[in-house]
Amino acid sequence: MSDPVFFQPACSLTVGEIADMTGAALLRGDSGRVIENVAPLDLAGRGDLSFFDNPKYASKLQATAAGACLCASKYAERVPAGTAVLVVDQPQRAHAVVLATLFPAAMRLAGPYGGAAGVAAGAHVHETARIEDGATVEPGSAVGAGAEIGSGTVISAGAIVGAGVRIGRDGYVGPNATVLNALVGDRVIIHSGVRIGQDGFGFSMGRDGHLKVPQIGRVIIQDDVEIGANTTIDRGATRDTIVGEGTKIDNLVQIGHNVEIGRHCVIVAMTGISGSAKLEDFVVLGARVGTIGHVTIGAGAQIAASGNVMGDVPPGVTWGGTPARPIREWTRELVMKKKRMIRDGARPNRKAPPTEAEGEGER
Amino acid sequence: MSDPVFFQPACSLTVGEIADMTGAALLRGDSGRVIENVAPLDLAGRGDLSFFDNPKYASKLQATAAGACLCASKYAERVPAGTAVLVVDQPQRAHAVVLATLFPAAMRLAGPYGGAAGVAAGAHVHETARIEDGATVEPGSAVGAGAEIGSGTVISAGAIVGAGVRIGRDGYVGPNATVLNALVGDRVIIHSGVRIGQDGFGFSMGRDGHLKVPQIGRVIIQDDVEIGANTTIDRGATRDTIVGEGTKIDNLVQIGHNVEIGRHCVIVAMTGISGSAKLEDFVVLGARVGTIGHVTIGAGAQIAASGNVMGDVPPGVTWGGTPARPIREWTRELVMKKKRMIRDGARPNRKAPPTEAEGEGER
Amino acid sequence: MSDPVFFQPACSLTVGEIADMTGAALLRGDSGRVIENVAPLDLAGRGDLSFFDNPKYASKLQATAAGACLCASKYAERVPAGTAVLVVDQPQRAHAVVLATLFPAAMRLAGPYGGAAGVAAGAHVHETARIEDGATVEPGSAVGAGAEIGSGTVISAGAIVGAGVRIGRDGYVGPNATVLNALVGDRVIIHSGVRIGQDGFGFSMGRDGHLKVPQIGRVIIQDDVEIGANTTIDRGATRDTIVGEGTKIDNLVQIGHNVEIGRHCVIVAMTGISGSAKLEDFVVLGARVGTIGHVTIGAGAQIAASGNVMGDVPPGVTWGGTPARPIREWTRELVMKKKRMIRDGARPNRKAPPTEAEGEGER
Repeated sequence: MSDPVFFQPACSLTVGEIADMTGAALLRGDSGRVIENVAPLDLAGRGDLSFFDNPKYASKLQATAAGACLCASKYAERVPAGTAVLVVDQPQRAHAVVLATLFPAAMRLAGPYGGAAGVAAGAHVHETARIEDGATVEPGSAVGAGAEIGSGTVISAGAIVGAGVRIGRDGYVGPNATVLNALVGDRVIIHSGVRIGQDGFGFSMGRDGHLKVPQIGRVIIQDDVEIGANTTIDRGATRDTIVGEGTKIDNLVQIGHNVEIGRHCVIVAMTGISGSAKLEDFVVLGARVGTIGHVTIGAGAQIAASGNVMGDVPPGVTWGGTPARPIREWTRELVMKKKRMIRDGARPNRKAPPTEAEGEGER
Repeated sequence: MSDPVFFQPACSLTVGEIADMTGAALLRGDSGRVIENVAPLDLAGRGDLSFFDNPKYASKLQATAAGACLCASKYAERVPAGTAVLVVDQPQRAHAVVLATLFPAAMRLAGPYGGAAGVAAGAHVHETARIEDGATVEPGSAVGAGAEIGSGTVISAGAIVGAGVRIGRDGYVGPNATVLNALVGDRVIIHSGVRIGQDGFGFSMGRDGHLKVPQIGRVIIQDDVEIGANTTIDRGATRDTIVGEGTKIDNLVQIGHNVEIGRHCVIVAMTGISGSAKLEDFVVLGARVGTIGHVTIGAGAQIAASGNVMGDVPPGVTWGGTPARPIREWTRELVMKKKRMIRDGARPNRKAPPTEAEGEGER
Repeated sequence: MSDPVFFQPACSLTVGEIADMTGAALLRGDSGRVIENVAPLDLAGRGDLSFFDNPKYASKLQATAAGACLCASKYAERVPAGTAVLVVDQPQRAHAVVLATLFPAAMRLAGPYGGAAGVAAGAHVHETARIEDGATVEPGSAVGAGAEIGSGTVISAGAIVGAGVRIGRDGYVGPNATVLNALVGDRVIIHSGVRIGQDGFGFSMGRDGHLKVPQIGRVIIQDDVEIGANTTIDRGATRDTIVGEGTKIDNLVQIGHNVEIGRHCVIVAMTGISGSAKLEDFVVLGARVGTIGHVTIGAGAQIAASGNVMGDVPPGVTWGGTPARPIREWTRELVMKKKRMIRDGARPNRKAPPTEAEGEGER
């Protein structure tokens, strides 16, 4: 087998051009040096751009062979002599700007099958569906009765768009993703295996069994939303489930029926938002956060990873733990647990990798 | 784009007819008023039915413009004058009964593609599979060798039914769901992306690597089960994995090999049930609950959201926390944590939505 | 409906042959007795082999009707008189060896559709893809431009292999699984609904919205890896996400961008590994474990189920809890919580299964 690279740079840039497009100051180095690609500090060569913003990797900075490096001014003197130094307040953001220029194909996602725009042979498009010119529908996908797909949008191989669904322009529905009973805006990225618009979990529990509560709402996905692989978003019971403009959702997230998520929220992987919860704008939920139903999380509030939200959260706070509470309170508890561990002289009980005798077959 | 509604009422009902079908007492209002739809309290107009059962929303009740409202007698006097009052012990259940009448299409799920019954062109049905008359097999689905699909069942676009699988009547296999090595009863609803019947996680661990343990059991899904999107149910190792009649499972739940789940259990989203665990009838597991393997949870026991079951649980109890223990004990611990928070004067550390400088690029 | 068995034994074995292939000592019984199948202790008859290694099931051992039983010497005398006793140090591993002989079809997975090798009618294979002789591509799957599939590998119905992906020999890509931007080794098992190679979760957060950071890395899956249903593995940002040789991953696991997993790790269901974390060889993560990003977990370290790793973990240790810390420390905390529960006289508050009045409709 050969060793393919999936994303090739669309162009090259000089160090001077990079300074211009990012607003970085060229503190040291040749503005004419040509940068042809990007790479992490430890893998970069003279044709590569790197960035530095995590002090944990300072030793990698000092050893890098990158052609140029974006970093904050306080780290500039640690950059090796052969590397051009581009000083900027937000190195990671500046790096993202350069990446978007070098790799436009990684910003505007193509279908996995690799064909041209239009409805491919082997795509199942209902005769009453409407596919705008410039949309791509790959083989093995299905677009149901009366559905509408906007220009520039890709329906990937194996994706299923249900009857009556509307998807806007310049979007991406990944392979094997499913969109039912939903209105989806422009430039929405729906990754592989996402489930949108299936029944919410509504039952009237009883001693003779549980009565299904019909779920007749919809899912509204506003513009510029991105949704990670295998995430599930149920449709509303009698109102709509809403994901606000610009919100970014990671993989394996669960969003229950009637949930309303504001604009520009960030929801990290494996988080679960129970039914009828409300997130105001710019809320950040770390990985593996859970919320009970019917709570409101105020604008700009942030919940640290693995926290459980068990009541309303005021705007602007940073909370963590179970139940979620101010981060200082939670951190104090964590520190106490660690101190107790040290006080008790917990030594690593070093042992060899598991032997056969220790193996356990089934979990 | 227009703004579609996916579920339209199949009929209208008078307030008197609603009283009859739910057993509600019409405390106030015109029994002849026509109800054409349902809506939440805050969105309802004179042609809509609402219900009230969560005191958190009392202000919405007092401001509603609904044509009629189902509620318990103690809240009747809070219903505004223009709204007919239907008093009933279980407003939510009564509401579900009305919904089922108005929206039969939301109770008996149709395929997303929107075609007629029968095997569609573009469906991949093995020549030895048997599809009963009245079943629907949508384009882009596959039904393997020797599989059997009962009358009235829908195999949605992109669904895969493996060789030898039996699925009963009047069921629904959602888009991109996968059913392997399984026997499935009647009226079973399998939502988008569900994975049934793949290998359980069985290895004999060793210092030279881990030996795969063949998984030769099956998955048995009894009648009237509902399984949420992207949930995974592994087949048994040498016995069967079983989901009992009437059990309802939410999204992104993991059910390990050999697990036996009784009748009419309720398992909320993101819960994980480890291998060989046993749930007796009417067990309720809240969201994000975990269990270790080989435990038994007694009939009617309930575990609160985010609890971790680390041993057997007696019948009929309500437990929570890590390790799961009686709910009063766990609640006391939560209350102490909150008190400490208040005592320490934890003020919301209000701040603006995250600025660019605070942004963090990758998690 | 008939009641199918999905896996039939490919041969029968005598008790003597089983002793030979597992290294077990035949302590009691007829070495010529024919064993035709395997079954759990409580379901086994005279033609079946069972094994015993979990003391919890001692009563089942004493009541078994199995033809032969693999067990450790200390349990030999508890085996009933009619059952041949095969004494071996690791009964579960010996059992796995026998299973692999009896059920080769459960070791080397076949496609769910059930066809012969070759590209089936109804498979969507790009004209520039290369399918080696002896590979199987089932109906409803898609293989994109320039992709390569090795001999003996099965691409199941509904599986999507993206452009340029390389998959080695004798592997299995399950139904509705998705593999993008990845290099996959030999004998890799990818179960139903797995998502490999989609964009990592990278954004530069800002007050005007969040800037997408292009993800230009790949996913490298080395030989003999197994990946459970609906697990997600994102591709790297500027480096690769790597899963080392022989590592076994369970269902619904999330692996973020740039994660490096060593050889022969075991990662149990619903675990989340945040971006840029590193697992050295032979690490074991129990179910529902979480890690923050950029941590290193040393070789052979084990994290107990539901633990949260919030910093580096030394090699060879066993840790648990939140934050993860030495298991003895964590266990002591659990025991204290249980003691408090007993001291407070927590009696099971027995009650009947939930009545209708207690029912709760929507969560």
